[in-house]
Amino acid sequence: MTEYSKMSRNDLENAYSDLLLRFQKCKEQKLNLNMARGKPSKIQLDAVSGILGYANTAEECMEDGVDVRNYGELTGLPAMRKYWADVLDCKPEQVFVGGNSSLNLMFDVISRAYSHGLLHSQRPWCKEDCVKFLCPSPGYDRHFRVTEFFGAELITVPMTAEGPDMDVVEELVKDPCVKGIWCVPKYSNPDGIIYSKETISRFAALKPAAPDFAIMWDNAYCVHEFDGDYVAFPDIISLCEHSGNPDMVYEFASTSKITFAGAGVSALAASEANIAYFTKLFSVQTISHDKINQLRHVRFLKDKAHTLEVMKIHAEFLKPKFDTVANVLEKEIKPLGFANWNRPKGGYFISFNTLPHTATRALALCKEAGVVMTPAGATFPYGKDPQDCNIRIAPSFPPVAELEKAMEVFCTCIKLAALEKLLEK
Amino acid sequence: MTEYSKMSRNDLENAYSDLLLRFQKCKEQKLNLNMARGKPSKIQLDAVSGILGYANTAEECMEDGVDVRNYGELTGLPAMRKYWADVLDCKPEQVFVGGNSSLNLMFDVISRAYSHGLLHSQRPWCKEDCVKFLCPSPGYDRHFRVTEFFGAELITVPMTAEGPDMDVVEELVKDPCVKGIWCVPKYSNPDGIIYSKETISRFAALKPAAPDFAIMWDNAYCVHEFDGDYVAFPDIISLCEHSGNPDMVYEFASTSKITFAGAGVSALAASEANIAYFTKLFSVQTISHDKINQLRHVRFLKDKAHTLEVMKIHAEFLKPKFDTVANVLEKEIKPLGFANWNRPKGGYFISFNTLPHTATRALALCKEAGVVMTPAGATFPYGKDPQDCNIRIAPSFPPVAELEKAMEVFCTCIKLAALEKLLEK
Repeated sequence: MTEYSKMSRNDLENAYSDLLLRFQKCKEQKLNLNMARGKPSKIQLDAVSGILGYANTAEECMEDGVDVRNYGELTGLPAMRKYWADVLDCKPEQVFVGGNSSLNLMFDVISRAYSHGLLHSQRPWCKEDCVKFLCPSPGYDRHFRVTEFFGAELITVPMTAEGPDMDVVEELVKDPCVKGIWCVPKYSNPDGIIYSKETISRFAALKPAAPDFAIMWDNAYCVHEFDGDYVAFPDIISLCEHSGNPDMVYEFASTSKITFAGAGVSALAASEANIAYFTKLFSVQTISHDKINQLRHVRFLKDKAHTLEVMKIHAEFLKPKFDTVANVLEKEIKPLGFANWNRPKGGYFISFNTLPHTATRALALCKEAGVVMTPAGATFPYGKDPQDCNIRIAPSFPPVAELEKAMEVFCTCIKLAALEKLLEK
Repeated sequence: MTEYSKMSRNDLENAYSDLLLRFQKCKEQKLNLNMARGKPSKIQLDAVSGILGYANTAEECMEDGVDVRNYGELTGLPAMRKYWADVLDCKPEQVFVGGNSSLNLMFDVISRAYSHGLLHSQRPWCKEDCVKFLCPSPGYDRHFRVTEFFGAELITVPMTAEGPDMDVVEELVKDPCVKGIWCVPKYSNPDGIIYSKETISRFAALKPAAPDFAIMWDNAYCVHEFDGDYVAFPDIISLCEHSGNPDMVYEFASTSKITFAGAGVSALAASEANIAYFTKLFSVQTISHDKINQLRHVRFLKDKAHTLEVMKIHAEFLKPKFDTVANVLEKEIKPLGFANWNRPKGGYFISFNTLPHTATRALALCKEAGVVMTPAGATFPYGKDPQDCNIRIAPSFPPVAELEKAMEVFCTCIKLAALEKLLEK
């Protein structure tokens, strides 16, 4: 194959005709495949369903002298706080254990910033003339939507191979309207990048103009390697403390992709002052979170070391899927020279950049052929990718055989949309 | 025994001296008893721990074609929506199934009213010049606190034997600043009153000046009879619909006192338009709630009829405790003529009214003698009972033997504080 940029118009026309035929054949298969969301597959869920065998009787429901079937322990079962501290390399006193959704904890932090303010806020954000929030992009659409929901102006920050462009971040935080930044520091969504040590240090050392600047550190994939060994990762809370910014960071994690998606246990980790502040706020909305599920998790996952063993089970099922996507892209797209993508070793996504101004069209074609993808633009603030080129591929859910079919359709549509553009059809 | 009001000063002084001695003896027991919160007892929790035996394997995790271990079904597992519709006598489409805490659902409704407004709001409540909220009192402190947290002015509405004083309510809702009212319509917290049919009809027929007036209908004790048969209760949602106010009511319920406290399943029931509105808002904060716990509940509780059977198990343990409290009060306090209380047939509380301006003192004495009660004033807005006479007794948690001891201390302290007042000590 030749790169599109080096092909004659005639050759491009021929390629286009071939692809049209191939696209028709794709459509005839009447597929119904989904690569839109980072959902674990059934086989992964089956492999960790041993957790359902814990806390099955009244006798098993005592832990740390606490009856997990009754009210109490708003900050979480002591053993579960200890568990998260072990996983995130912080202190148990720096952990607030939440419900089944870390997104909900993030939402609650921003929602309370809006209505009441954070620990160092001069006033609630709803009383500010202007609130801006930094969104390293491509990034996670649900993050961006939370701050958009509360009326913040979303500012795009470019991603580099080492994480968000810190030159840009350091410049932007001089604006007192800039109140925070969304981060997925390990296996970033969707790029799969691990922030470099320098990036992390520069985060901890930020001197924002806003006294209540919030680093929303969503460590969603903290133990989620599927290719190779666990990669140690610095504790941002102590780094912030050493830099004299102890209350600047809010770290989040959950077991949604360790045990069950939407039926796991979430955590907020932050300075003890922040945990005290939020425990007081959270006491208005709930008496305590589900400690039975916390107990099941502690008994099943035990600690970080054993959690890493459990993650190897997930890796066994995830790696072949990421390999499938990579292999198809290498074969079908790489020689044509118009697109690029990452090859992550952890997390749940592949970030694919096609020919500018063709992503929306390509995904419309995919949909026509029965393959649903995350909408084009979703990885940018307001769902608008200025280059209309970034596509998030989520290969975890479909079995490999379906994934191969879906990727064939995907490649066909990507090429078709690119040729339409090049040929100005 | 003679009523205090008919006793001579000398007799009162003698009674006071006797009580002081009795109080000293109470203190010497060095008790550590708690009647502060409506917590189920260990024996109740044990009796319903059969629920832990459901959904213990991967195979059991499919329901309605949904894998409950994965993301999805934000409004709830269809079977769980159907369950709540059966219990609350509404339609499944009128149910949004939440997490482990109905308080959190109530908080989220008020929080979103504050930041974004309700379905018929002209603007978010945070942009209103004035927001007032009606608080039938005595009532539930955690309700009042939610609206106080969002800056609403709390207006006390007197309780009658038929529920909130509807003459007062109908007058107050003419003020467009009045945005809603807190209700516990069945076995009200703490009075244990079932709102009369007339009260309920007048609620449904309210014509508030505020287009977004919200009846916060916390049906916390909808199936919670402990003395006698289940009492049927009208569906407020259809009543509001028939009165031309379909979107005025938000009903809440949970299984916190059916299965496990803080590890049950909550629900918001409202018009389909309200459910659609809130599902859209809730989609910003979470992907879906814990469906494994929903599945366990549906399998264990089955339907309303079977739930009422389960409630008989709770009744068996609760009734003797309420009887104990009633018996001690009948014997120790009634003849003295200065106090009154209710004798509910369901719910979790006894509302006790002592001699005005002595409740705070009485509970301070209780604390000194090792018995913790809900703070005096808690049942009124801002924690301030203008008469300082209402005390909420929560007899569910301690075993009967402890309860007897605690009630002995309680009666001693109530009388001591009353005599201090009468003798102006």
